Amino acid sequence: MCTELTPWERVVQFHGHVCPGIAAGYRVAMRMLQELGRQYPPGDECIIRAGKRFCGLDALQLLLGATYGKGNLQVEAEDRYHFELSLPGQSLRIELELTPRLAVYEEQWQQLFQEKLSPVKNGRKSEIIAEMVELAQQVMDLEDEEFFLKVETRQE
Amino acid sequence: MCTELTPWERVVQFHGHVCPGIAAGYRVAMRMLQELGRQYPPGDECIIRAGKRFCGLDALQLLLGATYGKGNLQVEAEDRYHFELSLPGQSLRIELELTPRLAVYEEQWQQLFQEKLSPVKNGRKSEIIAEMVELAQQVMDLEDEEFFLKVETRQE
Repeated sequence: MCTELTPWERVVQFHGHVCPGIAAGYRVAMRMLQELGRQYPPGDECIIRAGKRFCGLDALQLLLGATYGKGNLQVEAEDRYHFELSLPGQSLRIELELTPRLAVYEEQWQQLFQEKLSPVKNGRKSEIIAEMVELAQQVMDLEDEEFFLKVETRQE
Repeated sequence: MCTELTPWERVVQFHGHVCPGIAAGYRVAMRMLQELGRQYPPGDECIIRAGKRFCGLDALQLLLGATYGKGNLQVEAEDRYHFELSLPGQSLRIELELTPRLAVYEEQWQQLFQEKLSPVKNGRKSEIIAEMVELAQQVMDLEDEEFFLKVETRQE
C-alpha cells in the first residue's frame, strides 16, 4: 500500500526511533525551511554547520538535504545546539540556537535508553517507550520562546 | 500524488544527486541486506564502520538505518572502501571491501562536478549531467567480481 508520509513521519522512519533529539532537529529543520520560504530541501546548494553531533542532525539531513555523505553537513565540537545554514550562491545565512534546556530532555532520554537495554519486565519496557515518546512530545510542545534562543536570517 | 519509490529512488531523493559514490553505496547496502536475509533496515540494532567518508555513506544511512545523528555510523580515516556491519546482539559481522577502481570513477565525477560549477554553455551543462549519470550507471553495471574485493559474513 502506498502511503504519503508527513515530513515528521519521514524523519522518524529515517532516524529509527522517537526521542527528544530528533524532535528538536525536526523543529530546527522546519524553521529553517520556513526562513528560506520553501518546502523542499536546498540540498546540494546549502552548507550546514552544527555545534554538536546529536540525534537531531538526522532530521536536518533528511529535510534540508545537507548530508554527512556529501559533506555539506559539518559538525564543530562546540557542545552547543547551534546551527548555521548558508546558501553560498545567494549569500544567505540563517543562524539558530536552542536554549540549553534540550540537554535536560536528552539526559532523561539517555537514562530511559539505558534502562531499556537492561533486563527488565516486559510491562516496564512498554512504559519506558511511552515515556520516551512523551519526552519527545514535550520538546514538540515547547513554545518558540522556550525552545529557540536565537533565530537570525541575514543577507551578506 | 502518492508514488511508491524504489529503494534506489529513495536513496537518490535523500542524497540529492546521482553519482558513482551513491551508486556504490547503494550496492553495498543492498548486499548487506541480502547477507542479513532482510529487506528492512537493522537500524538501531547495527553498528557500521566505514573506511572513509564519501557520498555512498548516504545510501547506508537510508537503507541500513545506521545514521550519523544516532552515531552508529562510524568512519575510520583509512581511505579504503571498506565496510563492516555488526549486530552486537547476534554476534554477527559482515565485512565488505570494494576494489580500488571506484576511486577512478569518483575522480572522473569530481572533474565533471568542477566543470559543472564553472561558467559553461547551457548545452554543455546538460551533457555534463548526462555524463555524471552515465558514470553512476557504469558502477551499477560492474559485475560483482569487478566491484567487490571481499564479502565475508561470520558469526562470532
